Amino acid sequence: MTNIANTPTPPYYSVIFTSILKPDETGYEEMADTMLSLAKAQPGFLGAESVREGIGITVSYWDSLESIHLWKKNTSHLKAQELGKTLWYQQYRVRIAKVERDYSFDAEE
Amino acid sequence: MTNIANTPTPPYYSVIFTSILKPDETGYEEMADTMLSLAKAQPGFLGAESVREGIGITVSYWDSLESIHLWKKNTSHLKAQELGKTLWYQQYRVRIAKVERDYSFDAEE
Repeated sequence: MTNIANTPTPPYYSVIFTSILKPDETGYEEMADTMLSLAKAQPGFLGAESVREGIGITVSYWDSLESIHLWKKNTSHLKAQELGKTLWYQQYRVRIAKVERDYSFDAEE
Repeated sequence: MTNIANTPTPPYYSVIFTSILKPDETGYEEMADTMLSLAKAQPGFLGAESVREGIGITVSYWDSLESIHLWKKNTSHLKAQELGKTLWYQQYRVRIAKVERDYSFDAEE
């Protein structure tokens, strides 16, 4: 289980990745975990939130479009993207969105 | 289970709502379903994707900031927001983000 990402004051960028897997998910979770670890080590990575239950939604946050572009072109990530299209994904959609405003609530505050 | 939202060509807006519930979720799902139905009937609503497993991520898509503002101020929605803060939410974060670009993949194409 991920937590709510502790992102900085906007503006920054988000990648909203929504996906549906094929029935055979063998190897998917390990690859997803590896990619998240790798993403965290990239320049400009600000955080990520991920949930899967039927469909999966992963939102990652970045300091700039350039950081997103570099991550998309990362060699290990490129290989994972190809494997994903061949083996695991039935369907996905990626949306690049600029976070302009945010607010939050915490019951303990 | 929701599907991947069939949104139009960007630009449009997204509301990324990430939340963690308190242990007692009584009544939450019914309220969430009611609010989604109501959102779908609002002017400017373009679609939504929602998953909960530990944390919940709901992304709704809108044609403009004005439509998002009107939905936030909808009377039934305001009551639900108050109930949510009192009864159900341990923590949440809302991010308003402008979708600038998207692309998708379908294994059947």
